[in-house]
Amino acid sequence: MAETDFDRIKQQVRQFVVEREWDQFHSPKNLSMALIVEAAELVEHFQWLTEEESCKLSPEKLAEVELELADIQIYLISLAHKLQLDLVAAAEKKLVLNAQKYPAEKARGISKKYSEYKARD
Amino acid sequence: MAETDFDRIKQQVRQFVVEREWDQFHSPKNLSMALIVEAAELVEHFQWLTEEESCKLSPEKLAEVELELADIQIYLISLAHKLQLDLVAAAEKKLVLNAQKYPAEKARGISKKYSEYKARD
Amino acid sequence: MAETDFDRIKQQVRQFVVEREWDQFHSPKNLSMALIVEAAELVEHFQWLTEEESCKLSPEKLAEVELELADIQIYLISLAHKLQLDLVAAAEKKLVLNAQKYPAEKARGISKKYSEYKARD
Amino acid sequence: MAETDFDRIKQQVRQFVVEREWDQFHSPKNLSMALIVEAAELVEHFQWLTEEESCKLSPEKLAEVELELADIQIYLISLAHKLQLDLVAAAEKKLVLNAQKYPAEKARGISKKYSEYKARD
Repeated sequence: MAETDFDRIKQQVRQFVVEREWDQFHSPKNLSMALIVEAAELVEHFQWLTEEESCKLSPEKLAEVELELADIQIYLISLAHKLQLDLVAAAEKKLVLNAQKYPAEKARGISKKYSEYKARD
Repeated sequence: MAETDFDRIKQQVRQFVVEREWDQFHSPKNLSMALIVEAAELVEHFQWLTEEESCKLSPEKLAEVELELADIQIYLISLAHKLQLDLVAAAEKKLVLNAQKYPAEKARGISKKYSEYKARD
Repeated sequence: MAETDFDRIKQQVRQFVVEREWDQFHSPKNLSMALIVEAAELVEHFQWLTEEESCKLSPEKLAEVELELADIQIYLISLAHKLQLDLVAAAEKKLVLNAQKYPAEKARGISKKYSEYKARD
Repeated sequence: MAETDFDRIKQQVRQFVVEREWDQFHSPKNLSMALIVEAAELVEHFQWLTEEESCKLSPEKLAEVELELADIQIYLISLAHKLQLDLVAAAEKKLVLNAQKYPAEKARGISKKYSEYKARD
């Protein structure tokens, strides 16, 4: 099977870490911390914006947000590598579970968590 | 070019949201909040473990962690879709920038941020 | 000087940890993780609400949010204790710095970070 | 009853916000985002440290961490003000609930969540 773009990124992330001998710092515990720090840098861009403003970012702002998404993706790849997990397979598995938890006909247009809207049945 | 696994997941995530009419809740602001909430659920698994323990998860724990990684990946895909950004291209771009900021020969075995170890030159 | 309510809470938090012999888990690293996990539980309450809705919580929701604030305050107290820092003195110090960074006449009605609005001078 | 230090900080935080007309940005939703961003800046200080290192910060690092704790305390105060909640009363209430969930004789030296160690009975 042909190598995909996502495979290539995974290899590049891996190589980056190996070349810098950063594996010693990359315990799953530490990587989970690094990942949430990057997630917060993303949140920081949006904290004082209205929802509407967050949909219409300036090109400069969008370029910054793009790099935050990249940082999260990179740490997610590193963590999955460390735990020997496959992100695509994991996401696929989770989507099946989500479909059971949030059946389309019940969840339509409702943002409540499953436990909340179920209680209202 | 052939559709990749990652493309397929992106489409599945998209379809899931459309079928539930959840687009109305999915402003980038809200999605950044959802993403950090999932990142925190990941952190929660590791908060009282030593780094060493975080490397040797039980199969049950690992299965839970896998689903947290999946949740983060799913929201990351939703957010990238909303902002019309390509995660793979973004990660590739960021890796180039990171390589400039952290040259292998200088950063080897050092966990400091660029600004910190640079200051020691 | 009389003991204050805040002093009393600090002692109660301390006693709670000591009685359970939880000091061994309470490294500043771990406590910072626990604190952000609680902060995320707070965020979770607001992630799908509009800003306006977040101002008008139901009594039930408000009671839940109150306990999330409490959790954050409790971990903040534990962390300050561990690092031998005084939260009130720290906040007072920071407010002085903030007043220098965001002079009232310049920052009025503007949510930008100092670095951003300064650039527009 | 005499004004306490904590009361004084609450008033100073309030005055700071009013003078800058920042109330308009301070919806509970936005404040929860600002709070988690500050919590992440705290986590960032510890992400690559071992637990042991996190207990022995240099004076410079400690001074930075002190200001992060202050930022969290300040946003916590702002959020409690906005929701008309009393942080001290909330913490006291939560400590009572925690004592019921984690009885000292059962929780001693165990970091598991209540639900986890209960399952092992």
